[in-house]
Amino acid sequence: VSLSGEERLIRDYLAPLAGPAGLGLLDDAALVRVPEGRDLVVTKDALVAGVHFFADDPPEFIARKALRVNLSDLAAKGAMPLGCFLALALPPAFSEGDFARLAQGLAEDTRAFGLPLLGGDLVRTPGPMMLSVTALGTVPVGRMIRRTGVEAGDRLYVTGTIGDAALGLRLRMDSSLYADVEAADRDYLLDRYLLPQPRSILAPLVQAHAHAGMDVSDGFAGDLSKMLRVSGVSTVVDVDRVPFSAAAQRLVTRHPSLLATILAGGDDYELLLAVPPDQAAALCDGAATMSVALTFIGEAIAGKAPARFRSKGEDMAFESPSFSHFA
Amino acid sequence: VSLSGEERLIRDYLAPLAGPAGLGLLDDAALVRVPEGRDLVVTKDALVAGVHFFADDPPEFIARKALRVNLSDLAAKGAMPLGCFLALALPPAFSEGDFARLAQGLAEDTRAFGLPLLGGDLVRTPGPMMLSVTALGTVPVGRMIRRTGVEAGDRLYVTGTIGDAALGLRLRMDSSLYADVEAADRDYLLDRYLLPQPRSILAPLVQAHAHAGMDVSDGFAGDLSKMLRVSGVSTVVDVDRVPFSAAAQRLVTRHPSLLATILAGGDDYELLLAVPPDQAAALCDGAATMSVALTFIGEAIAGKAPARFRSKGEDMAFESPSFSHFA
Repeated sequence: VSLSGEERLIRDYLAPLAGPAGLGLLDDAALVRVPEGRDLVVTKDALVAGVHFFADDPPEFIARKALRVNLSDLAAKGAMPLGCFLALALPPAFSEGDFARLAQGLAEDTRAFGLPLLGGDLVRTPGPMMLSVTALGTVPVGRMIRRTGVEAGDRLYVTGTIGDAALGLRLRMDSSLYADVEAADRDYLLDRYLLPQPRSILAPLVQAHAHAGMDVSDGFAGDLSKMLRVSGVSTVVDVDRVPFSAAAQRLVTRHPSLLATILAGGDDYELLLAVPPDQAAALCDGAATMSVALTFIGEAIAGKAPARFRSKGEDMAFESPSFSHFA
Repeated sequence: VSLSGEERLIRDYLAPLAGPAGLGLLDDAALVRVPEGRDLVVTKDALVAGVHFFADDPPEFIARKALRVNLSDLAAKGAMPLGCFLALALPPAFSEGDFARLAQGLAEDTRAFGLPLLGGDLVRTPGPMMLSVTALGTVPVGRMIRRTGVEAGDRLYVTGTIGDAALGLRLRMDSSLYADVEAADRDYLLDRYLLPQPRSILAPLVQAHAHAGMDVSDGFAGDLSKMLRVSGVSTVVDVDRVPFSAAAQRLVTRHPSLLATILAGGDDYELLLAVPPDQAAALCDGAATMSVALTFIGEAIAGKAPARFRSKGEDMAFESPSFSHFA
């Protein structure tokens, strides 16, 4: 009995990653039961070779990045992963060996994050590779953490460190740049760009304690400004509080102009959280238990003024505080 | 307060299409309440310019096609539309005027089919335009109609007519082809390729009466063979029963070799349904009430032999019974 090429690739490489709702990836659709008392949270991000990753990145990392940027969104909403869908457009030069590696990356992270592959689509493109992942998660009914929920008086936190991926991207684009970077720092920064570390482990804490949340994908300064603007509040951030890795710190010390770059650079996939003061201790203690760094960066204040960023007592200006595809 | 380009395009053109679950498209994710007693049905299809549509098709039709191929999948599963997500990768030459037309097409069909836009992603690509739609629908708990549910003895039906879109594609690729086609037939066939007509109106009947269903997207012969194979049954189809439009009939009469082409050609977006004999009358009466043509094409029989297609008493052979992106 002859199978088409798609059917064979799906059967051999992707069907093993499907949970029961995926029906062995034999159907046009998945059947998803949302547990009683839970709401569904749905997010969808697209990645294009040459825009969001490099066409010659290892296929297993490309696949994992596509899953992880969506997992990061779920974590910011306080949602527990339920399953995902992948639309994959493959260029002519993408071999079955590449496909096997891509599937291996999917296998690893769908397992690690409890996000079974439930369906999708597999097509050819004459252009660059593109992946679109739709991730489903759940929260208690009505309890999704929104971007718009910041209130004046909330304490603002960010997880992990900011700017590593933006520096990693620069090094990836031009390896002759910053020739004075130590090899270990270089590897660390490149890795932070190649493979985001979504803060999925924090989702239950976010859900329990945050007023608002979003992940930092388009740049710390721009994303924080956006969250406050859509919430109708403001803040003044002391940039000297923003957490940087030792590698980033070393680089910025030598090249101070990089400070603005990394605050606006994007691809951090850390969480920005707004937390009422009486919940702050519980959130911080919980994050410490999970070994996730959580840094206080400022307080939300009343008023619709744009967020301000101050360094050494002076206001910083950003040419463009976040990444945008469109003018 | 400055908005990024994406934010402005989303606010001006897409936010008006969002239902309440879309949260004004201001968040990273949508919050979807699945009604009690219902299961979620999720499908995801991707379309690439130059592969699934022509880069110079009108943007409003490209958008509607992307929604409709997903609506067709929901209908085949007996699912009522709930909402959709769109990942859109736009090439450099795509103007804001094009974007406005694309949004207009989305507006029209999200309204017409009750499928509000709940979220998605908007990115640039150096390559061809690509759209990936994730459509959500619902069925009564446990009652999604599967592709694998055909039983021996089931009556097999197809909606509408087969082959029009495959002929329309040929004419679209080479307008000098079949110069003897009447202008009205040509327009009809071109339109059938440009804009699928998903059988969404039949979803409740499919849900109530069918054992199994799928939509015909990759070719009638191949898709029917697939549905029977994954169900572990077989059939013999008398090809002379397969419904053709008057336009297709006229063309095939003059060019008999087109018969195999249109049976294997794809893009029909009609429904294949397997129905137990005691439900057939109810399904047929219901479809007649909805003014949807429903044609009996054969009976499912026990056994794992591949489906056979007979024309004028002889077995037909297909070089490739369905479209596949991959060898």
